[in-house]
Amino acid sequence: MDRETAARRTTWPLDAWYVAASADEVGTKPLGRQITGFRMVFFRSESGDVVALEDFCPHRGAPLSLGFVRGETLVCGYHGLALDCRGRPDTMPGQQVGKFPSARHFPVIERYGFIWVWPGDPAEASADKLHPLPWAESPDWAYGGGLFHIACDYRLMIDNLMDLTHETYVHASSIGQKEIDEAPVTTEATAQEVVTSRHMDNVSAPPFWRMALRGANLPEDAPVDRWQRCRFSLPSHVMIEVGVALAGEGGYHADPAKKASSIVVDFITPETETSHWYFWGMARQFSVEDSALTDQIREGQAKIFSEDLEMLEQQQRNLSQYPDRRLLKLNIDAGGVRSRLMIDRAIAREQAAAE
Amino acid sequence: MDRETAARRTTWPLDAWYVAASADEVGTKPLGRQITGFRMVFFRSESGDVVALEDFCPHRGAPLSLGFVRGETLVCGYHGLALDCRGRPDTMPGQQVGKFPSARHFPVIERYGFIWVWPGDPAEASADKLHPLPWAESPDWAYGGGLFHIACDYRLMIDNLMDLTHETYVHASSIGQKEIDEAPVTTEATAQEVVTSRHMDNVSAPPFWRMALRGANLPEDAPVDRWQRCRFSLPSHVMIEVGVALAGEGGYHADPAKKASSIVVDFITPETETSHWYFWGMARQFSVEDSALTDQIREGQAKIFSEDLEMLEQQQRNLSQYPDRRLLKLNIDAGGVRSRLMIDRAIAREQAAAE
Amino acid sequence: MDRETAARRTTWPLDAWYVAASADEVGTKPLGRQITGFRMVFFRSESGDVVALEDFCPHRGAPLSLGFVRGETLVCGYHGLALDCRGRPDTMPGQQVGKFPSARHFPVIERYGFIWVWPGDPAEASADKLHPLPWAESPDWAYGGGLFHIACDYRLMIDNLMDLTHETYVHASSIGQKEIDEAPVTTEATAQEVVTSRHMDNVSAPPFWRMALRGANLPEDAPVDRWQRCRFSLPSHVMIEVGVALAGEGGYHADPAKKASSIVVDFITPETETSHWYFWGMARQFSVEDSALTDQIREGQAKIFSEDLEMLEQQQRNLSQYPDRRLLKLNIDAGGVRSRLMIDRAIAREQAAAE
Repeated sequence: MDRETAARRTTWPLDAWYVAASADEVGTKPLGRQITGFRMVFFRSESGDVVALEDFCPHRGAPLSLGFVRGETLVCGYHGLALDCRGRPDTMPGQQVGKFPSARHFPVIERYGFIWVWPGDPAEASADKLHPLPWAESPDWAYGGGLFHIACDYRLMIDNLMDLTHETYVHASSIGQKEIDEAPVTTEATAQEVVTSRHMDNVSAPPFWRMALRGANLPEDAPVDRWQRCRFSLPSHVMIEVGVALAGEGGYHADPAKKASSIVVDFITPETETSHWYFWGMARQFSVEDSALTDQIREGQAKIFSEDLEMLEQQQRNLSQYPDRRLLKLNIDAGGVRSRLMIDRAIAREQAAAE
Repeated sequence: MDRETAARRTTWPLDAWYVAASADEVGTKPLGRQITGFRMVFFRSESGDVVALEDFCPHRGAPLSLGFVRGETLVCGYHGLALDCRGRPDTMPGQQVGKFPSARHFPVIERYGFIWVWPGDPAEASADKLHPLPWAESPDWAYGGGLFHIACDYRLMIDNLMDLTHETYVHASSIGQKEIDEAPVTTEATAQEVVTSRHMDNVSAPPFWRMALRGANLPEDAPVDRWQRCRFSLPSHVMIEVGVALAGEGGYHADPAKKASSIVVDFITPETETSHWYFWGMARQFSVEDSALTDQIREGQAKIFSEDLEMLEQQQRNLSQYPDRRLLKLNIDAGGVRSRLMIDRAIAREQAAAE
Repeated sequence: MDRETAARRTTWPLDAWYVAASADEVGTKPLGRQITGFRMVFFRSESGDVVALEDFCPHRGAPLSLGFVRGETLVCGYHGLALDCRGRPDTMPGQQVGKFPSARHFPVIERYGFIWVWPGDPAEASADKLHPLPWAESPDWAYGGGLFHIACDYRLMIDNLMDLTHETYVHASSIGQKEIDEAPVTTEATAQEVVTSRHMDNVSAPPFWRMALRGANLPEDAPVDRWQRCRFSLPSHVMIEVGVALAGEGGYHADPAKKASSIVVDFITPETETSHWYFWGMARQFSVEDSALTDQIREGQAKIFSEDLEMLEQQQRNLSQYPDRRLLKLNIDAGGVRSRLMIDRAIAREQAAAE
């Protein structure tokens, strides 16, 4: 890790794969995006490989994201320094570039429909550390999602997703229902993940789930057993298994024909200490051919998550104004608290290794 | 006073009633507004009482102003903690709230059409310290006004209002006239107020006062005696008695039938060190039933005060850029200078008491 | 130099004539503009002379630019203090101004269609230090130009203009052509200026120069010899002699009837450490009566320079984020590097003299 990075005290791990973009955002037109405090440029070389470099030309500091792809190089749009896919100077008109410094190169993987970047020590980057998303490569699942830029600490979003009590209040008209905050919540942590679960038996489905029941060709008015299992894993992924089954059919374990279930997919990528990129989506196992339903769900989710935006950004402003306030840590907060603990330990391990 | 507040060196007194809102701004939908450096939320409980709490949920710091009123509680819109009208935790689904900390509660009074808040020591708050506004409860007077948010130190607005010389320049087309800056000005201070007065005899009325003369069924072209008496009182109220009387009829003391007089009402509430809420209005004793006239005056005032905005905000930028410059203190500035002295003494008293 | 100025460590010389405005921007309506860190107000008194004062009224710090001209004075629009053309208090209603402090006065010259201001020691200001622009007073030349506000260090603009390699990339559709970055570049410095030159023989003219050839009644498709001579002089002027001549006719030295040549005029005036005023234009020796051509060229230049804007402002953001990065200094950068050296020496001389 270079000195500049080591000196930086981050509130996130660096040795990890973060989602930087959806695969379709990155083409031959370079994309500039700040990820975990680093200005990065993402592009697809002519061979189709995705590359991530620091968005800073070693010549004069111009943003490489205003340049263009030529073959297997990215050409700076200011004075024409071409860098190869490892950030090494390749050519520049009228110059011998042999001794030019390189632009920093970040390990990157394209998989599951996303571009994953490793902002930390490249020696530690390996594909087997990527979070497995089996549904993303299975024909039995459909996926739709989107991206929001949110002006708050990425950990406030983790808190948000690891405590779905807020659905009752923030999302009252779509997925909220009174039974949520009445149902007991349990939190368990392993070395790999933190899981917060809540089960509500024999309730009526709120509007979003009525839509899903219809989509799954099930009666939308029938009483259901509903569940939420929020799974946090490093660096900042929250996969939430959610669903409803016809009441008494086994709930979470019910036969697929008796339930509508899905995974709420959340990749939360820090940009700065007080802003992040929020990649959200839903993977579902029902009516997977129905692309109109995919759109309808995406729209519903976009509406739901935009309800969180104002709350989170104003919460951030409050916390910035009163940085010394101690907040409560209730049982419902255990998911977020345990997740933050996992993050803190990962950061401490990295910093110990760097010293 | 809590430690966090005591540590804060303010440029305003805290033990005082400030206007936070007009009465019709506060309903069951909570209103978030920063007053004297504190984020506050104002709401009307179902019984109709107005309450002011810190806009910061003791659970996770969410803004309470995004919540909702339920009976005599304010429910946080994030996870459902309900606080009573003193800021004490009342209920939360699935939680025992007995040991939860409270949200700070601010004493509040609804009177004279305004919501008054006391940001300092609650033990010092008492209704008898409220600035009396007899005209606001008299059927012989009419009132209309508005609210501006202005990006300057609230004391620059006090200076502005305590030296009406600027009318000649800033408000040349409405209330300014050459005689203003030629008329001698006198300033007197008592323990309770600073009064700056100016009298102009046998002048012709400027456009705003012509309108008022018409409204009072007096000849608009007649020569008049004009007066301005600016009264500052703590923490930052400026009541300006203004008027014109037919010349030679006694001026300020003339028979009500021979004059058009009113009170320019100014409540200047600090938000931050360089911004404030400016509640302005006019109370008048003539044509009090004429609501069209009230609207016309309000419109005229809004136009006049908006002329001050650019001047004050650019003056603030100048002073921020050159913070060490010494400014002149002329006789015309005496009103502002004496008012600031009264403010400084009030702050010093509070800080001495806190130590 | 006053203490406030001496304490300020600038990245620009102060004892120099800077372009503050074009002559037609300054009339009797005062113009407020920050130049080299000073808030200034420019106005034309009734006699027609242009005056520059600090935009800060000695009375209460109000911006004088919101005032108005009366005879040979500028009257503050807040309380009526009138300052004469040296910034000395002249009159104020009801006041004896004899002992009032003055507003700072800046030496100013109107010449060549521009208003030039000297922000440093007035004792050093003399008209003979003005950059000579003979073309601006000759009937054989025509001029058109404009003004941009750019959010970057003014020296990044100097770098930009002293290395026209970037034309190939940033301005590919107008003046860029492949031969630019293939042609060798030479840089020479004298005590007065830095000159970077590039000559391209027997090339085809890019679109902008085709337009110029047409304007000069020359065949736009003919092969041409093209040249660029960038001349930097203190404090931050870059005059670029550019042109094309029919190939083999002597290039830069060709007979005027065989070439279309002009001077790209750039006055780069610092506003803050990270922003500047960019006065750009073109002086030409062909078709000087053709005002439609002047407009067409101005439009073309505006488009070209606006292509630089995003690059420069993002470069600034990169450099602000990574202030310790060392940049490369290649032969093509020599023009900028030498120009900055000339600036640094001028600053050092001033600071040595001040101590």
